Amino acid sequence: MLIQSSSAQLALDLVGVFVFALSGGLVGVRKRLDLFGVLVLAGAAALGGGVLRDVLLGAVPPVGISDWRLLAAAALGGLVTFAFHPTVERITRLVRVLDAAGLGAFAVAGSLKAVGMPGVPAVAAVLVGTVTAVGGGVVRDVLAGQVPEVLRRELYAVPALLGSTVVVVADRLHVLSAPVAWSAALLVVTVRLVAVHLDLNAPTPLRSDAHRQGIHGHRAL
Amino acid sequence: MLIQSSSAQLALDLVGVFVFALSGGLVGVRKRLDLFGVLVLAGAAALGGGVLRDVLLGAVPPVGISDWRLLAAAALGGLVTFAFHPTVERITRLVRVLDAAGLGAFAVAGSLKAVGMPGVPAVAAVLVGTVTAVGGGVVRDVLAGQVPEVLRRELYAVPALLGSTVVVVADRLHVLSAPVAWSAALLVVTVRLVAVHLDLNAPTPLRSDAHRQGIHGHRAL
Amino acid sequence: MLIQSSSAQLALDLVGVFVFALSGGLVGVRKRLDLFGVLVLAGAAALGGGVLRDVLLGAVPPVGISDWRLLAAAALGGLVTFAFHPTVERITRLVRVLDAAGLGAFAVAGSLKAVGMPGVPAVAAVLVGTVTAVGGGVVRDVLAGQVPEVLRRELYAVPALLGSTVVVVADRLHVLSAPVAWSAALLVVTVRLVAVHLDLNAPTPLRSDAHRQGIHGHRAL
Repeated sequence: MLIQSSSAQLALDLVGVFVFALSGGLVGVRKRLDLFGVLVLAGAAALGGGVLRDVLLGAVPPVGISDWRLLAAAALGGLVTFAFHPTVERITRLVRVLDAAGLGAFAVAGSLKAVGMPGVPAVAAVLVGTVTAVGGGVVRDVLAGQVPEVLRRELYAVPALLGSTVVVVADRLHVLSAPVAWSAALLVVTVRLVAVHLDLNAPTPLRSDAHRQGIHGHRAL
Repeated sequence: MLIQSSSAQLALDLVGVFVFALSGGLVGVRKRLDLFGVLVLAGAAALGGGVLRDVLLGAVPPVGISDWRLLAAAALGGLVTFAFHPTVERITRLVRVLDAAGLGAFAVAGSLKAVGMPGVPAVAAVLVGTVTAVGGGVVRDVLAGQVPEVLRRELYAVPALLGSTVVVVADRLHVLSAPVAWSAALLVVTVRLVAVHLDLNAPTPLRSDAHRQGIHGHRAL
Repeated sequence: MLIQSSSAQLALDLVGVFVFALSGGLVGVRKRLDLFGVLVLAGAAALGGGVLRDVLLGAVPPVGISDWRLLAAAALGGLVTFAFHPTVERITRLVRVLDAAGLGAFAVAGSLKAVGMPGVPAVAAVLVGTVTAVGGGVVRDVLAGQVPEVLRRELYAVPALLGSTVVVVADRLHVLSAPVAWSAALLVVTVRLVAVHLDLNAPTPLRSDAHRQGIHGHRAL
């Protein structure tokens, strides 16, 4: 059963664009940007991943700059954030939750589009989905002058990679359907939020200096 | 009347490349980069917007890396800056003026190229023009480690958006001509410089903490 | 004599990907990123230049996201770095040496691919080779929040430009062969390492304030 991918993909794109616009806008509000700065950051976060996806797939001009509905969703997200931004202390947590939702929607929307194009190897489709999901956040963070979320200590790219893989494997097994796509998106959100909630992190390199400090401390005793 | 867009577009491209190379080079001088660092930053500022435009439109390889005249203009701008850079206190103001000129030339050159290609929706053409105009400055600022001009407090992307819209609307109304294109560029420069001169800014988010501080101050009275 | 460019190019790509993955991974270790952060930074450094090359040439999807061998080399480089990262004091020097090797491999791999595609002007081929060489490092440094190597005070882009020029000129003279390609790569590495070793730098702008300080100092005598 083939998925009617266009409608599911548009819906996922719209969800991803809107919530990433909120997340980008909140970063802009936190940085005390003006209205247009907030809109630019909202747009970059919302549309950056999809534009990267389309450039990597050669689908130009990217829908992120040519589809009125996506642009309207991004602008709406930016305006909503600007008008009703929460108090500063609530922003950090909310950005994380919105990021998780956008991550799920875009991982699936990105890999769906990639498997629908001819001549895209499975591994490329998985990576395009992942880049779609994390790309907007990277653009947002680089523009805002902060270290990208994807490099920070919580599991971030892994849920997106997982969701993209589910879509691509389902496609290769000819079982890709709208429910499978939405389940994959939900899987991404769940894994990401569990990782945030449990503060799950990937292992870090052995800290040789900390180790030496430990030894020194022991010697000092 | 159709515009003989190739000559107007080349002229606008050359103007934009040269002045953005000056602006990029000045940032490099201010950051105390060496000759090649200044040239790289000049080239990134000068050619970044046009390369982004061509990648978004699928016009590869981009003219920014294949047209000798544009590359020569960028190198010339970088060398001129390196050799005759003004004193530090004059740099900030000059960078702003050069930025305005580049913004106008590139907004029009970008939207002109977009409307000249088949299958590009009007909204995409407007955004491609805007990205052409602000893209080089974003690349320059990200490389130089400073918050991009487009996110700072003055109206920056709006004049570019305005100029691109004029070009695209004129094209759709079949009245696009070289005078219209140059007028659109002049409009961008004027609006931008007026905004800088009057220190016009877009509204900023309500500062809830400042508000509370105000209340506290009032209570203290 | 035409080069069997596919095998030489793949070998150069694999070398460049692996050593740039080590260099990216080391930056990640130095920044105390977790395993996936290190892998992302390794992948960005290793594959960023090749992806930029393929996007500029319109060769999509880029091999950097579709060729298992390149992805495996990048992942291997990241894992090796994570597991066996040297002590902090040795990292800076090693990153420089790995960077030089990657620079040489990618300058040649990039220009080789560009001259093998129809309709790419010579100057574009030289610049595509240079961007392939320096692009991954730029992406790595921008993500890691540090000023890109290419803007810092040592000769960095020049050796890459030199190696790319050798390849493109050899192609235009119909003398491009695998030995020529490897020699060009070796030339890049040698020039880069000599520049690092001798601390060769390009000239810097006259420091008008330092100059004034000098005058003041003289007056004070």
